[in-house]
Amino acid sequence: MSKEKPSPTHFGSDNVTGIAPAIMDAIVAANAGGVHGYGEDSLTEAMEKRFAEIFETEVKVMPVGTGSIANGLSLATVTPPWGEVFCHEGAHINVDEANGPEFFTGGAKLHLMPGENGKITAEALRAAATRYPRADVHNPLASTVSITQATEVGTLYAVDEVRAIGAVAKDEGLAFHMDGARFANAVAALGCAPADLTWRAGVDVLSFGATKNGCLAVEGIVLFNPSPERADRLNHLHKRAGQLYSKMRFFSAQLDAYLDDGNWLAWAKNANRQAKRLADGLGGLNSVTLAYPVEGNEVFCRLPRAAYDAVVGAGIGTYPLYGEKDGVGSVRFVCAFNTEDAHVDDLIGAIASAI
Amino acid sequence: MSKEKPSPTHFGSDNVTGIAPAIMDAIVAANAGGVHGYGEDSLTEAMEKRFAEIFETEVKVMPVGTGSIANGLSLATVTPPWGEVFCHEGAHINVDEANGPEFFTGGAKLHLMPGENGKITAEALRAAATRYPRADVHNPLASTVSITQATEVGTLYAVDEVRAIGAVAKDEGLAFHMDGARFANAVAALGCAPADLTWRAGVDVLSFGATKNGCLAVEGIVLFNPSPERADRLNHLHKRAGQLYSKMRFFSAQLDAYLDDGNWLAWAKNANRQAKRLADGLGGLNSVTLAYPVEGNEVFCRLPRAAYDAVVGAGIGTYPLYGEKDGVGSVRFVCAFNTEDAHVDDLIGAIASAI
Amino acid sequence: MSKEKPSPTHFGSDNVTGIAPAIMDAIVAANAGGVHGYGEDSLTEAMEKRFAEIFETEVKVMPVGTGSIANGLSLATVTPPWGEVFCHEGAHINVDEANGPEFFTGGAKLHLMPGENGKITAEALRAAATRYPRADVHNPLASTVSITQATEVGTLYAVDEVRAIGAVAKDEGLAFHMDGARFANAVAALGCAPADLTWRAGVDVLSFGATKNGCLAVEGIVLFNPSPERADRLNHLHKRAGQLYSKMRFFSAQLDAYLDDGNWLAWAKNANRQAKRLADGLGGLNSVTLAYPVEGNEVFCRLPRAAYDAVVGAGIGTYPLYGEKDGVGSVRFVCAFNTEDAHVDDLIGAIASAI
Amino acid sequence: MSKEKPSPTHFGSDNVTGIAPAIMDAIVAANAGGVHGYGEDSLTEAMEKRFAEIFETEVKVMPVGTGSIANGLSLATVTPPWGEVFCHEGAHINVDEANGPEFFTGGAKLHLMPGENGKITAEALRAAATRYPRADVHNPLASTVSITQATEVGTLYAVDEVRAIGAVAKDEGLAFHMDGARFANAVAALGCAPADLTWRAGVDVLSFGATKNGCLAVEGIVLFNPSPERADRLNHLHKRAGQLYSKMRFFSAQLDAYLDDGNWLAWAKNANRQAKRLADGLGGLNSVTLAYPVEGNEVFCRLPRAAYDAVVGAGIGTYPLYGEKDGVGSVRFVCAFNTEDAHVDDLIGAIASAI
Repeated sequence: MSKEKPSPTHFGSDNVTGIAPAIMDAIVAANAGGVHGYGEDSLTEAMEKRFAEIFETEVKVMPVGTGSIANGLSLATVTPPWGEVFCHEGAHINVDEANGPEFFTGGAKLHLMPGENGKITAEALRAAATRYPRADVHNPLASTVSITQATEVGTLYAVDEVRAIGAVAKDEGLAFHMDGARFANAVAALGCAPADLTWRAGVDVLSFGATKNGCLAVEGIVLFNPSPERADRLNHLHKRAGQLYSKMRFFSAQLDAYLDDGNWLAWAKNANRQAKRLADGLGGLNSVTLAYPVEGNEVFCRLPRAAYDAVVGAGIGTYPLYGEKDGVGSVRFVCAFNTEDAHVDDLIGAIASAI
Repeated sequence: MSKEKPSPTHFGSDNVTGIAPAIMDAIVAANAGGVHGYGEDSLTEAMEKRFAEIFETEVKVMPVGTGSIANGLSLATVTPPWGEVFCHEGAHINVDEANGPEFFTGGAKLHLMPGENGKITAEALRAAATRYPRADVHNPLASTVSITQATEVGTLYAVDEVRAIGAVAKDEGLAFHMDGARFANAVAALGCAPADLTWRAGVDVLSFGATKNGCLAVEGIVLFNPSPERADRLNHLHKRAGQLYSKMRFFSAQLDAYLDDGNWLAWAKNANRQAKRLADGLGGLNSVTLAYPVEGNEVFCRLPRAAYDAVVGAGIGTYPLYGEKDGVGSVRFVCAFNTEDAHVDDLIGAIASAI
Repeated sequence: MSKEKPSPTHFGSDNVTGIAPAIMDAIVAANAGGVHGYGEDSLTEAMEKRFAEIFETEVKVMPVGTGSIANGLSLATVTPPWGEVFCHEGAHINVDEANGPEFFTGGAKLHLMPGENGKITAEALRAAATRYPRADVHNPLASTVSITQATEVGTLYAVDEVRAIGAVAKDEGLAFHMDGARFANAVAALGCAPADLTWRAGVDVLSFGATKNGCLAVEGIVLFNPSPERADRLNHLHKRAGQLYSKMRFFSAQLDAYLDDGNWLAWAKNANRQAKRLADGLGGLNSVTLAYPVEGNEVFCRLPRAAYDAVVGAGIGTYPLYGEKDGVGSVRFVCAFNTEDAHVDDLIGAIASAI
Repeated sequence: MSKEKPSPTHFGSDNVTGIAPAIMDAIVAANAGGVHGYGEDSLTEAMEKRFAEIFETEVKVMPVGTGSIANGLSLATVTPPWGEVFCHEGAHINVDEANGPEFFTGGAKLHLMPGENGKITAEALRAAATRYPRADVHNPLASTVSITQATEVGTLYAVDEVRAIGAVAKDEGLAFHMDGARFANAVAALGCAPADLTWRAGVDVLSFGATKNGCLAVEGIVLFNPSPERADRLNHLHKRAGQLYSKMRFFSAQLDAYLDDGNWLAWAKNANRQAKRLADGLGGLNSVTLAYPVEGNEVFCRLPRAAYDAVVGAGIGTYPLYGEKDGVGSVRFVCAFNTEDAHVDDLIGAIASAI
């Protein structure tokens, strides 16, 4: 089977995209002279400072190569091997990481929770976290809650919802992790301060995504106001997992340029806006149903096989149709930092033409 | 403490360097259009094909982000948790990876061997591998031998030495791993076919380094003629460790450009040649002693504190002097793909001026 | 808080009991002379032979100290770290082993399934095992199904139900594990051949319980017709987990005496019979409700607080009342190899007196 | 191959022995009535109290089934996965536990040290523990020192030697573990207070052996004056490893009877005395050489093949001769709690007869 070649228009995922020009410029700019590796460079220092400013508090930031590693190391920093991590049953850490969280934590358990629109509730968390007596060594130890923001189905936790979960976490002695692979999309859509959506709401550690929103390959593990023990633990976990890049400055440079001048939010806003346009366009079509509220940059819908085929026939990149029944199937369209009006119009046009 | 800023001249390590222009061009070229992630792209396919050509056999190639991950996953592919890995006591896998090999293998043990010039011998390997009865479940199971080529001290295994180790490995049922963080330097210096230095000599899996020799951050795990079981095992290990990059094409692009047009060997040759020039220059100075034969791109020497201070004073980047005694200490100077004659001349000049 | 002292009558669990006389005699009998440890003794050889006879096929038997280890090592023998194990949400491996299965397997995931009366169905297993494309390395790999027989709530899988699960396991490439902490109770109740309930129905590996039914502390991991690779893997896992007892003969002696002369089934029959008597007695009382069909040796019921207090007041050992609401709570009464008619009568009497 | 049957006279190991009568009596005595499992019984409480008295301080004691588990869990309690454990190259944790320590610790590394008579020195420990800069995350982290007392070759650390190691451990921030599989033999021979040999000398955690000296199968992990965090960590590790026995009272009963009335030391004294008699007898023979000072209950010697064959011919149990060269090989004879004068005389006689 021959592998896919690039398409100018592609809605398969926001990770089918390339590198935003400002990020590429930053990589090029960092490529001057020699400098000590492993983060002992001034660019890395500056990047971490920028995170502290944007989050309005003391942070420790560790760049890593993928979101799966960010999640795995984040969880391992706050969860013992005998602990359990509460998360939505559709969470990336459960479905898409090939037991990576279990690997990085040394055998912690994910406790799956159902929940509408890809979200868990504070009430359900409290019930789950208190179902065993805390002192009983026989059971897994309630240790951590992990939520995805924006969620796996393109919805958002409101700030109040995050706060409510944070309050339960505090009550029950849980650490609070946020998988922010699409954190920029969430902040852009909610229009809140990054601090309000994270540490002020009780979040201890954030997987801060950047790859899907214009970087080559970098995510930041952000520890908020960490204790020395926790920071030290992350240092060792990060190195042991092979994430202490020798040419760290090129990773720091990406994150730095990503945060510079509001780039991250501007790009996320574009992605969100295009998704909204797409949702509006599809919403007007017979035979197309949106599966979830479109609150970020992802549009999940059910549409006829013929419409899907028309999309493919138009040379528009996409993921396969799944769950097909009676000629109707599900598909996800994802908008990105570089999605243009014309791309969305083409997609809507292709679908409309087949209905 | 303020972090280091880039210097035009830097001998601290070959990983203080930036990205070679041809690699940067390849990254830029790959940045067009959208394409399925996770290696399902045509560039990744082409890259793997190029490896097969250069190594003259069937290979499976998995790009990863760092040499530590390449080593950890390579060892985990061929070593059970109850196994032991024979290696030199100075091996990177022992000294510099914070127990990464133990992490990735699920608890295998490194069995350290002394050896001159950073090398183990086939005879010593045989003695070590046969010291326990193979069927005795009490002892660690002799499973794998790992050598570094070029070694940690800048020396080389001759093809015959690799072959002899490969023969013992075969006799004793050991898998054979090569840590090739500076594999290009070894091939360039030995002038042999890559196949002769690897699978034809019995090597099963190679950590193929590229970062130190001009790439941004990428190494390849190369499995030679793997069984389906072994290939499948690596697939799962690689994904679980968070190494299946969404924007894989940018990693494949680096490796592809690295191998293109003999780049990798040309760059390594330059590094080796400059190291030789440096060794020659230092060899002519009183009070400077070379610690090991200079066979690749690294020069280990002992020199007076005053000479070291002169280097630093000249704005030349370097690692700290260590093991100082009676005013004389040890330091490593590493040449790279982009080291120029003038850089080496400056370094020799600075040292000479202080002696 | 002062710890519990022994009571002559105790229904808290079948593990509150002591050692059956025949088992004690076997331990004493094995205590003569010196003999090589670690299973290199004739008693261990004889014990394994007896298992082969009773199960009517070739088996490998590894004695271990607890049911949790039996389960953990059984699962680790057949499940890769990236695998998932399908089991009932109430399974001991999920609820009561403090992430032991994740520990022993190196990070496999338990996939929890609901199901009436503590049982999963073949249909639900098929749906769960096929929900991801098998070749997709992103998802956990469907690897193993584990059922508990008798179940955690005292019910039984019929032979046909086990067979149906075994058929799905075969279709989907899953290994099949049975947690038989109360296997004797199941066989005694079903009156079937041990082979019919295990390997002939597709079971690959059995945690064969003995502690709860009269032994001091020993369970057997039973591999049915194992491949050399699987047997070898268990050997290493078992030793690495510290389960290769030096004085193995005392563990083998227990298992041997347990199987001798039908002891295991006779004892289980007594336990089952007493549980049935208890269920019948409680069933005739107002205000007491049985929570599950009583098919083995466990009786789960809801009863008034006053009745529970009367039990405690009568000096009858029991576990705490839980889930109390409106003066009614849940409790489990477990009968054992040495439960006598008078014990059960006393328990019924105490409850009846309070209603 | 047919497995070994018991011999009345056996010097293969102290673990070839059976159960001392006082231990058997204690098991029988504990076998009355039913009582809550998992250590929630009064016998376990009493046992722990007895440890506190004998060690003259606050202790936490966790019974486990084997010495390998005691070592693995002890190390895991005090060593992070990125840590290294300093130990003698011949240590049981390195040679005989199939990578158990790596398993239980989640991947810590053993750093092997040579040393005469099976012992490491405080000086060598200091050199090893300080060879990497402590703050450098690249290297394994110097975490723990583990010594075996009595050693693997039957010698002893003097109290002052233990203290000196303890002092280095304190200076360098290392935890201090003692593998006391033959701790009783050491205390009996040295005639010191158990406290002087352990926590007063800096030991944090002791694998307290009992199996080799008359118990069925039980060792105690003894934490001295533990912090709540460390005690809690051990609780979880112990349960997760499947060591929280349901019928814990039979394990506690063994330990309790072992410590009662000075049994443990009386039995060890007998073993030591017989070993001394054996050493004296062999020392008077031509062609027999003692390999190490005989300070505990083990005698390592080199003797002619003919002499070894005579031992076997006399029906005396022993381990195989190894390292044979020119008709002379090595063998270990171990005396135990139940070795009698006549057994030793028979062994000496058999050897003498062949020389």
